[in-house]
Amino acid sequence: MAARERNLAREIVVWARRKETRDALRLKTWCDSAPDDIRTACSGSDFIILCAPVERIIELAKTIAPDLDSNPILTDVGSVKSRIAHQCSGLLDGQARFIGSHPMAGSEKTGMDNGCADLFNGRHCFVTPLPEADKQAIEDTIKFWEAVGSSVSIESPEIHDEIVANSSHLPHLLASALARFVGEHSPQAADTCGNGLRDTTRVAAGDPQLWYEIFSQNRHEIIRALTAFQDDLQALNAALANDDRYEILKRLSDAKSFRTSLDT
Amino acid sequence: MAARERNLAREIVVWARRKETRDALRLKTWCDSAPDDIRTACSGSDFIILCAPVERIIELAKTIAPDLDSNPILTDVGSVKSRIAHQCSGLLDGQARFIGSHPMAGSEKTGMDNGCADLFNGRHCFVTPLPEADKQAIEDTIKFWEAVGSSVSIESPEIHDEIVANSSHLPHLLASALARFVGEHSPQAADTCGNGLRDTTRVAAGDPQLWYEIFSQNRHEIIRALTAFQDDLQALNAALANDDRYEILKRLSDAKSFRTSLDT
Repeated sequence: MAARERNLAREIVVWARRKETRDALRLKTWCDSAPDDIRTACSGSDFIILCAPVERIIELAKTIAPDLDSNPILTDVGSVKSRIAHQCSGLLDGQARFIGSHPMAGSEKTGMDNGCADLFNGRHCFVTPLPEADKQAIEDTIKFWEAVGSSVSIESPEIHDEIVANSSHLPHLLASALARFVGEHSPQAADTCGNGLRDTTRVAAGDPQLWYEIFSQNRHEIIRALTAFQDDLQALNAALANDDRYEILKRLSDAKSFRTSLDT
Repeated sequence: MAARERNLAREIVVWARRKETRDALRLKTWCDSAPDDIRTACSGSDFIILCAPVERIIELAKTIAPDLDSNPILTDVGSVKSRIAHQCSGLLDGQARFIGSHPMAGSEKTGMDNGCADLFNGRHCFVTPLPEADKQAIEDTIKFWEAVGSSVSIESPEIHDEIVANSSHLPHLLASALARFVGEHSPQAADTCGNGLRDTTRVAAGDPQLWYEIFSQNRHEIIRALTAFQDDLQALNAALANDDRYEILKRLSDAKSFRTSLDT
């Protein structure tokens, strides 16, 4: 949708796993064709984007590899980059130029009906090439994301995975653990709670299978982040036990200051 | 604003701590008068609502007690009820009928400019009388909150404090600890993060002093909730370390199921 609206491609070919989705795609003005076979869909393309749960991306790359005859740029939108980068670069070597991407867009809602041409507009996108990646492919991938309205930063797959463990996966894990905790200990909060609980747990409505895969793929970084966060909670617990006004206020103020910076 | 729009009072008298606010109040159509002295403001009233940080509510009750000549109903909007209930009921005994309230409305933004006549509409309000409280006063307090559009539940101050420790104070504490954690470990997330982090940490922009007071007043219940939550995180950490798909999926699914119930 975004690529058509911004006129970024002569021809847009989409493959989807489910037949109903492919049938629906054929009625969309932003989609030129939706072949039943993914290898047909990818053959002859200049620029291929694999949009699937992290576990499926490597499988899809394997499936299409034999038919990639045009040395296309191949990117993906997976939330964890290190394993995808190494495996896809390896298995596509000589047949496609793999450059990982991670657009920080979307919500707990998935599927075509929740997409729109402005999904990436004003959002951030990581582009995560390996050191040996093709320079032109990196540049073109960046240009694509900028053209759909995103701001782009380049990070190694490893640094990307550390940043998102802290700023996306740990938040999801906490939101989910909190929703479960409240459901177990104060289920009546479903009728009484304010917006604080709703906001803080919003992402916990996301697809469990999808998030299990993200947790599993990035588990070393997530365990590192979670363990450090548990230490912070223990320090806060001690500060509460001592009613340590200075320490608690300092922590609340540091938090407010960072949170406020997210809105500027 | 809500009381005037719904025609709930013949005369609406407001006192505010800051002179500029009192001056501004005198220009509002929903406010009939804004005396400089809080004791003048309360004298002769039928129904008084103390809207102040939890620490200030007891002081305000002490200040106005000597001039309460009409045995009014006195309620408050503090987020922690146990200490307020016992102290206010004691010090107002014979002069006012104290019934604690806790409307679950508002946001991280405070002050008159962020209020509106619909603030309480569709929200929940706890009414938290002590066992010996005046029955008519309980009923009238419930009627007031229902008249401004809230759904009301009655809880003892102690049960209320347990529920909000789980469903409001723990979420705030986690959102704040998370914002501080990300600010410390991945400050670049300010430019790169998606809506997950924004939602999950939104309440961390709230006033540190206000939240320190809430934490301090309800610290026993909050420490209980936090300690139990820390045990949950440790179990999750172990499940991640073992890549225990079943356990992680179960926790994510329980969480999704409770979170989804908040939107119905």
